Amino acid sequence: MTQLDFARKGEITQEMITTAKFEGVEPEFIRAAVEAGTVVVIRNKLHRAIEPLAVGAGLKTKVNANIGSSMDHISPDEEIEKLQAALDAGADAVMDLSTGGDVDAIRKEIMKVSTVPIGTVPIYQAALEAKKSGKSFVELTAEEIFDVIEKQAEDGVDFMTVHSGVTLSSLERIKNEGRIMGVVSRGGALTAEWMKFQKKENPLFEQFDRMVAIAKKYDVILSLGDGLRPGCIADATDKGQVQELIILGELTKRARDAGVQVMVEGPGHVPIDQIEANILLQKRLCNGAPFYVLGPLVTDIAPGYDHITSAIGGAIAAKAGADFLCYVTPSEHLRLPTPEDVREGVIAARIAAHAGDIGKKVKGAMEKDIELSRARKALDWDKQIKLSIDPVRSGRIRAESPPEDADVCTMCGSLCAIKIGDEEMA
Amino acid sequence: MTQLDFARKGEITQEMITTAKFEGVEPEFIRAAVEAGTVVVIRNKLHRAIEPLAVGAGLKTKVNANIGSSMDHISPDEEIEKLQAALDAGADAVMDLSTGGDVDAIRKEIMKVSTVPIGTVPIYQAALEAKKSGKSFVELTAEEIFDVIEKQAEDGVDFMTVHSGVTLSSLERIKNEGRIMGVVSRGGALTAEWMKFQKKENPLFEQFDRMVAIAKKYDVILSLGDGLRPGCIADATDKGQVQELIILGELTKRARDAGVQVMVEGPGHVPIDQIEANILLQKRLCNGAPFYVLGPLVTDIAPGYDHITSAIGGAIAAKAGADFLCYVTPSEHLRLPTPEDVREGVIAARIAAHAGDIGKKVKGAMEKDIELSRARKALDWDKQIKLSIDPVRSGRIRAESPPEDADVCTMCGSLCAIKIGDEEMA
Repeated sequence: MTQLDFARKGEITQEMITTAKFEGVEPEFIRAAVEAGTVVVIRNKLHRAIEPLAVGAGLKTKVNANIGSSMDHISPDEEIEKLQAALDAGADAVMDLSTGGDVDAIRKEIMKVSTVPIGTVPIYQAALEAKKSGKSFVELTAEEIFDVIEKQAEDGVDFMTVHSGVTLSSLERIKNEGRIMGVVSRGGALTAEWMKFQKKENPLFEQFDRMVAIAKKYDVILSLGDGLRPGCIADATDKGQVQELIILGELTKRARDAGVQVMVEGPGHVPIDQIEANILLQKRLCNGAPFYVLGPLVTDIAPGYDHITSAIGGAIAAKAGADFLCYVTPSEHLRLPTPEDVREGVIAARIAAHAGDIGKKVKGAMEKDIELSRARKALDWDKQIKLSIDPVRSGRIRAESPPEDADVCTMCGSLCAIKIGDEEMA
Repeated sequence: MTQLDFARKGEITQEMITTAKFEGVEPEFIRAAVEAGTVVVIRNKLHRAIEPLAVGAGLKTKVNANIGSSMDHISPDEEIEKLQAALDAGADAVMDLSTGGDVDAIRKEIMKVSTVPIGTVPIYQAALEAKKSGKSFVELTAEEIFDVIEKQAEDGVDFMTVHSGVTLSSLERIKNEGRIMGVVSRGGALTAEWMKFQKKENPLFEQFDRMVAIAKKYDVILSLGDGLRPGCIADATDKGQVQELIILGELTKRARDAGVQVMVEGPGHVPIDQIEANILLQKRLCNGAPFYVLGPLVTDIAPGYDHITSAIGGAIAAKAGADFLCYVTPSEHLRLPTPEDVREGVIAARIAAHAGDIGKKVKGAMEKDIELSRARKALDWDKQIKLSIDPVRSGRIRAESPPEDADVCTMCGSLCAIKIGDEEMA
């Protein structure tokens, strides 16, 4: 029985109670939302070391951090450092996207250390193993791909991205569209390549029920990936992207009918004036399934600052109803992130999530701002810093420039408006 | 004659031709917009060393960087370093807000080095000079305040913030409102203190025509300051703020009637769901005058990252019609910014401005993204980096993590979607 099965039977599980408490809502709210499919409760049945995480409408917007090795950069220790940086910075979930070295060992170590749910993209490991055995990815059998999915589920992975919407029909539309960037998702590109070589439909689409059966067994969340997401803002919201989303909406229903919980992934690179429409479209086409967005990045011209371009897009998306933000780090488009990049990325995404939560009136969000503002008004610096999103950084910046009067800061000195205002209002 | 006077006579000035060329619009567009008051052309008649800058509807969103000493931190050399950092990072204008040391000398040096328009808040210098002469600011005479304004205008300052909307009626509403943060603008707080002590109306309101006459003489842009802007998101869009905006709208008309160009300043700390309404309100109440916003910051909880909180707000504001973004640096609320903070702040604000320009379809904005994306698709790394908003940083990040295959980056290595996609689409 999955959380969705329990919800349908009207049963409130311990997972629902735990997540309800964290969110400050009633357990029945979680149960009803899981039944409706607008909330997922994430935790693999075999992954008992972590607390479950609820994601979806009416709840706090969550933040995911992607870590993992690449073929060009393999360091299991650094992956644990990145995991720790993500946890310290407040990530709600972590995806291990390792594609270099002994990825089973890296994943197992990450699962051992992590206090939050772990996600993967199984096709990455399948691709890596093909390379290791001297084959091209395109030569893999569907059997071998499903074996990786089953193995990762058995290992306790909590949510998995599967690019089941990359189909002959959606790919055809991408080609006709004449995109600038083509297919930029690794999973999407690999799948497309496989399909072309094999002259077959995508096995993750064709044998979707097989994947659903694995997910059902372990209560893994299927995160339906947007393999055809736009890779630049000029490609956003095109026919290929929307075609894939329609298919993901249909698959959402099929998975749910089988008692499997589903999230749907979204773009990507989206201009600021199209973000709201993208959220509306996903919620409508996927029957309100939780929406997990990567960014979105609102411009392509800022490599080195894509944590900022995606914080802009993420905040707007969260406010419009996105439920789960995948962070983007300053090193996106340039290199594998370092632990420091991970930290920067998580904080930027948390700012975006929180700004969105204020806008969509999530319970308890605005109260944090009011509490910090009261400390600011009271010139209570210790409390301001303690309540800030990153007390280490805010404390350090202030300490580097000590004011003459400890009440104020060196920006305004004795012309501090708050101090003047106190006198004036008195 | 001011640019507005010329525009009304149907004359296209050299300044209109220069700015039109920069914006990629017809000179007549600038003239008509200056006549309508929806665009200002910024340059003091005596400040011939710089190019004029046009700000307003239909044009690129501009970015201002605040620099300047404080009583707690006085280093004329560092101010020039900050100016240089702002210029290098691409600021369109710089405000010298110095309140420490020999501010005349600092301002003159900044004006000598700067290649962009310079703004000030004259009341800061008035306050400093009162302190230096052993008086309290509240004891200043209106005469002394206007002397500073005249002196700065004579020195060639291009635009000046004047807090003329801080009046007995708007202050009364702030008090009745019961704000958390009260008055957080330095100019607003000083003015309010002065009014309370003197038991008089704000001289910058009462003798507004006197200030208009000075502005007219030098064609200084009056930037009508929001002295009562909210200092936390819970205080946003309250009666005091809106009352001040109504007054600023009335003063806009009076200044324009006299041939003086006007911008209006806006908040500040604004939750994400109120930004669009704030822009609409300003444009409506101030007859379409260019809107110059500080931030807006979409949350209060992120000191140390307020360049990001304000990039989120600034992008949304720009998209909704804000014309000029005042940057916020990572050190906001914590200390006087360093040159590195200035650089970070300008880049974040430029990202916001550009994202907004894409959203409001400013001519030439999207083309930059398309050009970089084409280089990205072609795996042309040199060009990608050259076209990026900060080639030094993007180049450095990539160089720190060299890939095995120079075509790709260490994020994906040989699993690069673009490289796979090239093969697949071929």
